[in-house]
Amino acid sequence: MPSQKDKIELKPIGFLSTVFTHKFGTPRQGALAPSSAAEFLLIPEWRGKGLFEGLAGFSHVWLLSYFHQNKHTRPAGKVHPPRLQGTTVGVLASRSPHRPNSIGLTLAKIEKVEGDGLWLSGVDLVDKTPILDIKPYLGEADRPEAYKNGWAGELPPTDMRCDFSAEFFTDLEKLERAGRVAERERFLNLVREVLRLDPRPLAYRARVNERFAIVLGGLDVHARFNDGVFTVIGVTPFVAAESPKPE
Amino acid sequence: MPSQKDKIELKPIGFLSTVFTHKFGTPRQGALAPSSAAEFLLIPEWRGKGLFEGLAGFSHVWLLSYFHQNKHTRPAGKVHPPRLQGTTVGVLASRSPHRPNSIGLTLAKIEKVEGDGLWLSGVDLVDKTPILDIKPYLGEADRPEAYKNGWAGELPPTDMRCDFSAEFFTDLEKLERAGRVAERERFLNLVREVLRLDPRPLAYRARVNERFAIVLGGLDVHARFNDGVFTVIGVTPFVAAESPKPE
Repeated sequence: MPSQKDKIELKPIGFLSTVFTHKFGTPRQGALAPSSAAEFLLIPEWRGKGLFEGLAGFSHVWLLSYFHQNKHTRPAGKVHPPRLQGTTVGVLASRSPHRPNSIGLTLAKIEKVEGDGLWLSGVDLVDKTPILDIKPYLGEADRPEAYKNGWAGELPPTDMRCDFSAEFFTDLEKLERAGRVAERERFLNLVREVLRLDPRPLAYRARVNERFAIVLGGLDVHARFNDGVFTVIGVTPFVAAESPKPE
Repeated sequence: MPSQKDKIELKPIGFLSTVFTHKFGTPRQGALAPSSAAEFLLIPEWRGKGLFEGLAGFSHVWLLSYFHQNKHTRPAGKVHPPRLQGTTVGVLASRSPHRPNSIGLTLAKIEKVEGDGLWLSGVDLVDKTPILDIKPYLGEADRPEAYKNGWAGELPPTDMRCDFSAEFFTDLEKLERAGRVAERERFLNLVREVLRLDPRPLAYRARVNERFAIVLGGLDVHARFNDGVFTVIGVTPFVAAESPKPE
């Protein structure tokens, strides 16, 4: 058996460019945020070698990523998944990013493949995430006929109501005139997909009617939570540290 | 953007114990060899921390593994998947183990979880494979409603006929009496699952009627290929270098 002290050294093959510049508001599963677009950029040493040849016929890829924003040096054996509201499960029974090895697994939809260029959607990763590997989704290998979802199956993802205020649309029109929002429907869908999952950390959920902001594609999306509904009250160009952003 | 020179250092959380002690004969996708059993062993520093608590409710896990037997120091941009019979595809459009980072992704079926113990089936990994991460299979994240399999969908896995000779059963009875084969049906199924995929490397496929051996669970399974059929002609305790084993 190989030594337990063996270290394995890996080097990212490229980096993702996504609309999520901050961890807060980044969805926990890409499949729940189909409007989130991402572009993958190979590092120079892998370009021009045809790495993506034959990929265009597939609909989805697995992204094996490195959670580069993790600050925990010593991850715990158990975690608190948000939808369990305080109950713990073993970290290997969860998809938490705070794991023994900070590796993520995301199924993303292929939007376009062209030479070394790869455009994706349904990505739950923070901007500039290092990518360790990309593999095609293969039904014969990745799709069991029968399966059970464990604790996650009994607790479907949160699905909150999300309203947009008149002030939000005034802001939005300004940004559209300034060329900061190109596709209104896609942007509204993205905001809805992110809010319906309730991005607030557990510790913030008691703070009713408090204003917070989520950064999406370089914009601060301001919202309030009250009576079981998120109200989006504004959208402004992102300014560091202007609005409170839970860590 | 993080530096492209950034190295990422990982340490296995444990190792797999499987019936496949040699690369030759190890299936390329675990889903195609449901009879292959495996046991996962956590390294001591992760034991007793409840890492698997809550996992028993799930039916499947993802194994993120390290292909420790890879000898290529500089993987190519393109590979020759066996079922394409010579045609190349980009390595990131394939599940080949010879990748920029030697990481594997295998969906395995959970047979039993008990404390720190985890028993699996449908595993396509060589014995002693280092495991980097284990994640539960989540339908909501890992199961797109509609999908396309690309070049792999047009070329389903090989499905060869596999016969057992009378000599094979004579050998088998001897091994059963010696306590080397506990469950006959499971063993026969495993041999069938491995052979029907045609484990022979492309270069060996022209050699008709040549005898070869596959090592399964410490036993040499001897077979011949002729007229489109594998005939299993014997089974003996594994002796290193006795039978030819393609690399």
